[in-house]
Amino acid sequence: MRCEVVAIGTELLLGQIVDTNSSWLGEQLALAGIDSHFQTKVGDNHGRIVASLRLALSRSDAVIVCGGLGPTQDDITREAIAEVMGVSLVRHPEIGDRIRARFEARGRRMPENNLRQADVPTGASIIAEMPGTAPGLVCPVGAQVIYAVPGVPYELKEMFEGTILADLRRRAGLRWVIRSRVLRTWGESESGLAETLGGRIEELDRLGNPTLAFLASGIEGIKVRVTAKAADAEAAEALLAEEEAGLRERLGDLVFAVDDDNMEATIVALLGARGLRIALAEAVTGGLMSARLSAVPGSERVLAGAVTVPNEDAAEAIGASGGIGGATAASALAQAARARFAADIGLANAVAQSADEEARGTTHLGLATATGARSEMVHLPGDRTRVRQYAVISLLNLLRLDLLGETGADGRPACR
Amino acid sequence: MRCEVVAIGTELLLGQIVDTNSSWLGEQLALAGIDSHFQTKVGDNHGRIVASLRLALSRSDAVIVCGGLGPTQDDITREAIAEVMGVSLVRHPEIGDRIRARFEARGRRMPENNLRQADVPTGASIIAEMPGTAPGLVCPVGAQVIYAVPGVPYELKEMFEGTILADLRRRAGLRWVIRSRVLRTWGESESGLAETLGGRIEELDRLGNPTLAFLASGIEGIKVRVTAKAADAEAAEALLAEEEAGLRERLGDLVFAVDDDNMEATIVALLGARGLRIALAEAVTGGLMSARLSAVPGSERVLAGAVTVPNEDAAEAIGASGGIGGATAASALAQAARARFAADIGLANAVAQSADEEARGTTHLGLATATGARSEMVHLPGDRTRVRQYAVISLLNLLRLDLLGETGADGRPACR
Repeated sequence: MRCEVVAIGTELLLGQIVDTNSSWLGEQLALAGIDSHFQTKVGDNHGRIVASLRLALSRSDAVIVCGGLGPTQDDITREAIAEVMGVSLVRHPEIGDRIRARFEARGRRMPENNLRQADVPTGASIIAEMPGTAPGLVCPVGAQVIYAVPGVPYELKEMFEGTILADLRRRAGLRWVIRSRVLRTWGESESGLAETLGGRIEELDRLGNPTLAFLASGIEGIKVRVTAKAADAEAAEALLAEEEAGLRERLGDLVFAVDDDNMEATIVALLGARGLRIALAEAVTGGLMSARLSAVPGSERVLAGAVTVPNEDAAEAIGASGGIGGATAASALAQAARARFAADIGLANAVAQSADEEARGTTHLGLATATGARSEMVHLPGDRTRVRQYAVISLLNLLRLDLLGETGADGRPACR
Repeated sequence: MRCEVVAIGTELLLGQIVDTNSSWLGEQLALAGIDSHFQTKVGDNHGRIVASLRLALSRSDAVIVCGGLGPTQDDITREAIAEVMGVSLVRHPEIGDRIRARFEARGRRMPENNLRQADVPTGASIIAEMPGTAPGLVCPVGAQVIYAVPGVPYELKEMFEGTILADLRRRAGLRWVIRSRVLRTWGESESGLAETLGGRIEELDRLGNPTLAFLASGIEGIKVRVTAKAADAEAAEALLAEEEAGLRERLGDLVFAVDDDNMEATIVALLGARGLRIALAEAVTGGLMSARLSAVPGSERVLAGAVTVPNEDAAEAIGASGGIGGATAASALAQAARARFAADIGLANAVAQSADEEARGTTHLGLATATGARSEMVHLPGDRTRVRQYAVISLLNLLRLDLLGETGADGRPACR
């Protein structure tokens, strides 16, 4: 089973919008075990859209067309599909009523051109999900099929997950259910992870199910994706759970989150579970750490406060007298933030202390608790932006490991 | 002159990487007046790359191929182009030497497979710019041409701007020079801008040069792009300068920056020019404002300090006793931040004060100077993330207008 993606819109060719829809669809198709060999972008031009659809049908069994389903004169995907099908458009009054009802529900009058969206190629059926005003279409072309979806990402996703994927699987005769799970890791390179997992990777290569893939996500670490195939969803989830347990045993603390969770959500959850509150002092990261933590819903219960310290005066203003550079300053800033906001933990970063340190990209991290403060030095590569982002994730990970250490072998709490 | 873009890489089809190269190239081609009707993504498969190149050459005069020029066995763009040209690959020893020298300069040993990058289709020439280890290629196919560039964005950009654009223009017989400039605006909708510029838009439509385009950039405002065509660069820049002056006269304070500059860089420059220092207190934006300002080089001279106040205790810790909700709190937080960090200006935001306010997306903004404090109320749409981002840009813009007001009609400084 092969399925191509054709994205419609002159604004895509002009670079005014980056086509993320095709990327998302490509990932979903791959996860479902459906081959996708070509993705095409074409402008709002009838002849070229028709040619692109015919070409795609000459190479693939199915085509997903994104965009060009709106109400304006530029939106000509419906007409192009009708030409490829060799049929004419017919207006569906009940779709028109649904569109009109959408506008009325928002207290707005429907411009008449919206009824163009109720024009459907003869023989095509409407996709049940309709989160916006443009209906999606399933358009049979002999034994092949064209799916038409709006270019609005959330509308497209709902239609793909609700209707198109199941229809593709049925056509492909796929009886398997495929599920995947992502373990997010930080602190180890791809080759390091491969070494750690060594034997298991070879076993999985031999078994063929589940499968394992490493996906780099920049300075936010490396994702380990497990994909399992089974007769039903329950069996696939069971395979995933078993594999996750085995991987976690091997990877240990390297795993910081699952699927769409991120480092800051993990930190907020860990602090919440332990009833701990944290305060920040940021000389290098200038508020980035605070911005990330405060973005997590519920973070106001664990984030006591944060301060950006661009210079020595700012450090003094919160009660740290040792400036903003070096290891001692990092510890002092962490202690000052902890004291100022009456928190359980103080977390800080300080800039390089000398030209030599600066050349090596040195950043000092500080962690203060009731029992004292300590610092750690990291060397971060890249320009200002990259160093700042790297410092944030490094420091959050340091805190995570420290919080996990609270239930460590010696039983002593690390962050009290 | 038509030029297509073909992006190579299975990782693009699998959605592991979003293809931003094609979007960037599409924009550059459009700015240069070169038509680009199709963009294709294809995987690392010899037959399908060859087919895509042949198809592109059947529809266009030139093709830019991105990716697949690296040293690994997956990198087969060179071989595919050679097949399309009907020639074989020949190794260029001097390119091999350059690649080896790159590795040596970094103190690393060159893996032998890197020499594959010195294999060039017979008759192709090397692009002069070589920022990485993979050379770019200009490959004539009869009267047509294929340009091959690496998939690494900055390498591709350097080669396009240094060699490919000029070669395309020469082939197209374009004698005009095209230059563009972007005026970034905030505070007015696209239709509002169109109304403000009304007469001028009609004039430019009639004249045809320069041209005007509105580009939305989300909550960061709307860009007004002016594109001018002239016999040489100097004349084009003169046209731009004249049009910019006219637009600024009509748009006034709506324009906050030019080209790649952003709101925070404008604020840092305004503060620096006036010798003013600012302090922040963020209840809604949780460090985002500080993160943006502190990202600007030189900001440590104007940013006195910033504090995130997630709750009432944090507000008290910096000396503001009125909590973090409502108009009075916003003013008090601004004053407390100003006092705490001994700054000239205090800038703050406070959360909604009641359930009713919250339902309307109310955020309170506060501004404090030596002469007192004032607050402003805004209603921001969307979810938590969107409200936070909207609050940042709204508050920065409020400050910008206030700073500009310093040289206002009545001559009284607004921020002292």
